[in-house]
Amino acid sequence: MCAGGRTMDTTGKVIKCKAAVAWEVGKPLSIEEVEVYPPKANEVRIKMVATGICRTDDHVLKGALQSIDFPVILGHEGSGIIESIGKEVTGLKPGDKVIPLCIPQCGKCSSCLNPKTNCCLKTHLSESQNLMPDKTSRFVCKEKVVHHFLWTSTFSEYTVVPYDAVAKIDDQAPMDKACLFGCGFPTGYGAVINTAKVESGSCCAVFGLGGIGLSAVIGCKAAGAARIIAIDINNDKFEKAKTFGATECINPLDYSKPIQEVITEMTNGGVHYSFECIGNTETMKAALECCHMGYGTSIIIGEAPSTAQISFNPLMLFTGRTWKGSIFGGWKSKEAVPRLVADFMANKFNLDGLVSHMLPFNQINEGFELLRSGKSIRTILMY
Amino acid sequence: MCAGGRTMDTTGKVIKCKAAVAWEVGKPLSIEEVEVYPPKANEVRIKMVATGICRTDDHVLKGALQSIDFPVILGHEGSGIIESIGKEVTGLKPGDKVIPLCIPQCGKCSSCLNPKTNCCLKTHLSESQNLMPDKTSRFVCKEKVVHHFLWTSTFSEYTVVPYDAVAKIDDQAPMDKACLFGCGFPTGYGAVINTAKVESGSCCAVFGLGGIGLSAVIGCKAAGAARIIAIDINNDKFEKAKTFGATECINPLDYSKPIQEVITEMTNGGVHYSFECIGNTETMKAALECCHMGYGTSIIIGEAPSTAQISFNPLMLFTGRTWKGSIFGGWKSKEAVPRLVADFMANKFNLDGLVSHMLPFNQINEGFELLRSGKSIRTILMY
Repeated sequence: MCAGGRTMDTTGKVIKCKAAVAWEVGKPLSIEEVEVYPPKANEVRIKMVATGICRTDDHVLKGALQSIDFPVILGHEGSGIIESIGKEVTGLKPGDKVIPLCIPQCGKCSSCLNPKTNCCLKTHLSESQNLMPDKTSRFVCKEKVVHHFLWTSTFSEYTVVPYDAVAKIDDQAPMDKACLFGCGFPTGYGAVINTAKVESGSCCAVFGLGGIGLSAVIGCKAAGAARIIAIDINNDKFEKAKTFGATECINPLDYSKPIQEVITEMTNGGVHYSFECIGNTETMKAALECCHMGYGTSIIIGEAPSTAQISFNPLMLFTGRTWKGSIFGGWKSKEAVPRLVADFMANKFNLDGLVSHMLPFNQINEGFELLRSGKSIRTILMY
Repeated sequence: MCAGGRTMDTTGKVIKCKAAVAWEVGKPLSIEEVEVYPPKANEVRIKMVATGICRTDDHVLKGALQSIDFPVILGHEGSGIIESIGKEVTGLKPGDKVIPLCIPQCGKCSSCLNPKTNCCLKTHLSESQNLMPDKTSRFVCKEKVVHHFLWTSTFSEYTVVPYDAVAKIDDQAPMDKACLFGCGFPTGYGAVINTAKVESGSCCAVFGLGGIGLSAVIGCKAAGAARIIAIDINNDKFEKAKTFGATECINPLDYSKPIQEVITEMTNGGVHYSFECIGNTETMKAALECCHMGYGTSIIIGEAPSTAQISFNPLMLFTGRTWKGSIFGGWKSKEAVPRLVADFMANKFNLDGLVSHMLPFNQINEGFELLRSGKSIRTILMY
């Protein structure tokens, strides 16, 4: 397929390979042999190289995200190499290194045409991505149709994604690191740079020190924040947070009063910017409340379960606070991910500490256990 | 007192005059003879000329605002003339036309020093204004101490306010109109211009067409909004809204589906900016939800009862919406109100339609009934 290579040409054929299938809520993933059908028009088939495990995947396994059809192949933070392309695909060819995009960029909808948002109307939040755009699946297992997830489904040796949901990256990019650009790093870093637009000298608070939270810390440091207060209930995460730029690390379990009060006192009235990187509604409230009543801005980065509700007093906003969300860090994905990877290749970011565990793909359930234990920052599975 | 005038010099004396005293929650106001003590250092005593009646005053009478001490003299949207000044007051003299400021500007706190907010830390939302800064009252009635409200207490023929809570305005300003610059007009207009920063060509929705809502419509029009959708449950308000610039007027009672869905459909996905000008938590949610999921911004202008809670799904923000509050339209009050009055004098705004009723001061309870009936836009009481 590649010049000089001797790989079998599978174009147009069904590929049999291994994938981690989620058959139902509450059960471990099952490594199965699946059939991956060829890409149709405006689709590409990708041989995955690496994939991260993110809390949003775990939300599905716990039944906390609605509108997901089972059985399903999860995974949305991956890197791979194009195996074949469907008709009408331009600018991509077999052998290209790519990242599937969990937030697509169709380039045509009212969001894509507006410079203020990256939330393409083809995301799972406005229409289902459980099937390809033609409303069929490319996955079959044991003669059953298996659903797609976020149009990415990176927990499979091969996956098929629409053209709007894939970005070509630098041929030299190291794939074990590149997969972080599929979700965690752009999400945390971009929330600081694009959504909050943190100014030099600001005082920031980052709630939750997983991969996204640490990426937010990296963003705060890059933006020149004067104080970066990192919050987690696991003290083991503090050393790494400090490496990335946190100036203070605090554990809510060490205080009898709510952490938002602690932070408000520490900062003489509240921070300029806070970032919720967990997806927990109580932490979202705390993050809002620890902002300065007049000029504080709080950014929700973590995705809460679909049915989650926050109850709060509107006076919290009335005095001048701003509350907003950030999805995929505000990056228009298809155009931004290649640039971010290029910046990484130019050593603008050092992401070494963002990956805490590397496992072979068939140990995916162990990866999820690490996530649930709160001990991992990011576990990367290698195919 | 004024050159050539023959008014009695009351400086340093206790003035006996009429005021509307709120003795307890749930009772009509009582016009009483009160004693108004002279201004202490950094205070001024004002002879009121006109005052508006605002929903926030009614919240107190209904017991919906906490931390208010009774008996109290309410009122926070007034215009008057300085009668006397306390020690250390500079730049103000007896005879000056002034507006008491329900949001002060101390010029020294972390909010006053930050260009992004006007929410001075001396507002009632961070410290009590039920007494003057020295923690005593200037009002006595029937030998009882009567409390101040928002440091303004404009429902009295004479009031005393701190220097930080009064703005000198143009000597030629018509006082019956000028009082609108004490709350309603700057609040609605500024929320559009300062807080939302509405751009030309935007699509806006304004919920509630009282004085603040119509002022928001004026702001949208001034900002060049392409569509201004005005929402009220009283069709009688639509004609005036259109006069001020509303392009469409809709009544939620005319639809079986929630008004946020109606607006989302009307606007192909939601408005750029929405403004809640009522203080009702359900309307605040509707205003958020009718914004575009990717780039919509919703501004809370109405003050909800102190104990109000909004329950909402954080996905509403996650996709990119922004939710923020605006107090006194984001204007740094002491410096902005004189400028706004000057702009009014230069015919930059036509506020004629903002006042629906004029009553003598002693008919104040009728003014409150007009407010509660939903029939008035703004009732102005003249002393």
